[in-house]
Amino acid sequence: MKTRAAVAFEAKRPLEIVELDLEGPKAGEVLVEIMATGICHTDAYTLDGLDSEGLFPAVLGHEGAGIVREIGAGVTSLAVGDHVIPLYTPECRQCKSCLSQKTNLCTQIRATQGKGVMPDGTSRFSYKGAMLHHYMGCSTFSNFTVLPEIALAKIRTDAPFQSACYIGCGVTTGVGAVVNTAKVEAGATVIVFGLGGIGLNVIQGARMVGADKIIGVDLNDDKAEWGRRFGMTHFVNPKAVEGDIVQHLVALTEGGADYTFDCTGNTTVMRQALEACHRGWGVSVVIGVAEAGKEISTRPFQLVTGRVWKGSAFGGARGRTDTPKIVDWYMNGKIEIDPMITHVLTLDEINKGFDLMHAGKSIRSVVVF
Amino acid sequence: MKTRAAVAFEAKRPLEIVELDLEGPKAGEVLVEIMATGICHTDAYTLDGLDSEGLFPAVLGHEGAGIVREIGAGVTSLAVGDHVIPLYTPECRQCKSCLSQKTNLCTQIRATQGKGVMPDGTSRFSYKGAMLHHYMGCSTFSNFTVLPEIALAKIRTDAPFQSACYIGCGVTTGVGAVVNTAKVEAGATVIVFGLGGIGLNVIQGARMVGADKIIGVDLNDDKAEWGRRFGMTHFVNPKAVEGDIVQHLVALTEGGADYTFDCTGNTTVMRQALEACHRGWGVSVVIGVAEAGKEISTRPFQLVTGRVWKGSAFGGARGRTDTPKIVDWYMNGKIEIDPMITHVLTLDEINKGFDLMHAGKSIRSVVVF
Repeated sequence: MKTRAAVAFEAKRPLEIVELDLEGPKAGEVLVEIMATGICHTDAYTLDGLDSEGLFPAVLGHEGAGIVREIGAGVTSLAVGDHVIPLYTPECRQCKSCLSQKTNLCTQIRATQGKGVMPDGTSRFSYKGAMLHHYMGCSTFSNFTVLPEIALAKIRTDAPFQSACYIGCGVTTGVGAVVNTAKVEAGATVIVFGLGGIGLNVIQGARMVGADKIIGVDLNDDKAEWGRRFGMTHFVNPKAVEGDIVQHLVALTEGGADYTFDCTGNTTVMRQALEACHRGWGVSVVIGVAEAGKEISTRPFQLVTGRVWKGSAFGGARGRTDTPKIVDWYMNGKIEIDPMITHVLTLDEINKGFDLMHAGKSIRSVVVF
Repeated sequence: MKTRAAVAFEAKRPLEIVELDLEGPKAGEVLVEIMATGICHTDAYTLDGLDSEGLFPAVLGHEGAGIVREIGAGVTSLAVGDHVIPLYTPECRQCKSCLSQKTNLCTQIRATQGKGVMPDGTSRFSYKGAMLHHYMGCSTFSNFTVLPEIALAKIRTDAPFQSACYIGCGVTTGVGAVVNTAKVEAGATVIVFGLGGIGLNVIQGARMVGADKIIGVDLNDDKAEWGRRFGMTHFVNPKAVEGDIVQHLVALTEGGADYTFDCTGNTTVMRQALEACHRGWGVSVVIGVAEAGKEISTRPFQLVTGRVWKGSAFGGARGRTDTPKIVDWYMNGKIEIDPMITHVLTLDEINKGFDLMHAGKSIRSVVVF
């Protein structure tokens, strides 16, 4: 079949809107009509050539929502017409990782996903006879895409695609880091470094679970209003702090925060986030993706005196099990998404979404097909 | 009163055995007759002048066991004749840390303890009229010493002092890191870096809770027999490994260990310990004390993909609550101590104990008064 898609033919070049050839689903695979897709920093990271493992040409996009249009042989958990969110972190429920019950990082199709192909080693996308790579196992910048059954979360049919797509990455990454990775409890003190699309979702996750003090840290004063909108109680701009930012935050939290979250990807900030934790029990969660080659460091004394350093990928959420619950939280008003969707674009306008993101003018741009 | 003690008059000089003046217990304090004391690396670290906060002259020693001989006004939880273990990590059960129920790092008397004095700001020790510092709130290298009531764990009277004293630091630090900090479960895979007095206790802690694979890593082949003696199932000498030690350990554990413990104090080893953890859930615990100024580092990707970096002080044990339980475990045969006490010395021979430790010839030397 044919499908319209935004294709990254090579790094550092705008996406091109073209009509592709798409093969139908093979065994264990599902054809999905993507109804909406978010544009995320990770797409830009790859498109800008910063990801040393990035493959081109490729159909990018990993934050989508859509409808099942065809199922391959052996697919049992999904039917034509189901509403779904594609999962760059699948959930097979059979591999060592899934069975450990300790992680969401399913390894069933990791090897082929990293190579930009389906589990059988081939691509479903081609353009003028030449193969195009899948991206993060999702390729939501295409109106139609094919995914493995284990990489699709079935969600309720009354959730609007334009907001639900954001649950495919940003919302779950932020809210999940609070709920699944840090397990923040009511009354806790939380510091969030970086108030972008992830940081704001960490803030509203902390609000949802009843945190008392939710401190947002950002170099851009304009983010203060955004933070407050989702539950932030205090704003700190490091540029306005005299002296050491860590000491300032430790004083503000009477000894350090119970939980801190890095949503910047900056390794210096990651260290500050750890050291702003309370002695004895503070937990710091790295969410941001650092530049290739950058390392985090600290004095081991920080750990010996009780601080814990951990990280979170896709918010620690098991895609098929937890994503539908987050859709429920949105539909029940426990979390908000609509105000974060600052820009709605057509596929033809997709490069504008990247420009808005780079200029810091959007929280989230969504392409609606 | 008078007491015999080994005094550190200044750094880098052997201890001197002298007769000191000791003031009796003030309100909330207890006079203890030390019956036995271990010699620990931390005593050597201070005596060698490596601890930038070390104070001299001082009565060192922090790993003891003894008998209550006199109680000060207001002491209610202890009576004359009680057997006790001094606690360098006290447990007041009233401070923010104790009440958090999340840490053993009681802060009630931390400030004065760090200054080498009792909570009222004065010392009980003097020699020829000049004040001597207390050490880690314990000073067990003195036949009699005075401690705050909250820094004494009451233990059963049938436990031999010569072995029980080791529970005051090394045993609890190692076994507790397994039980309290990492919470290792039956069937787990564990790697222990450094098979000294702490590492062997990590090994026997892992054996006690039913770990399946217990891998010991040490540069000294002689330690292999010691490790096996306490439950180690595999020994790895990095010098005998071709290629990368982390990759070797990841292969040996089929993807990485569930739990790793650094008992070396070497920051390079701490990184290896983290990176030898299993993707998704591996937990690495720093126990060793690093040289001043040394830092740990890693790629944040290690954390984002599910490894957790934490630390442990005094094995995460709440001194008054947990130490008596560890004495029970010893008395019931769940853990062993006697074979680790390789040398029993008199107070006059205490410097020999330091020599044995520096030469790597002892697991633990104990001074019996």
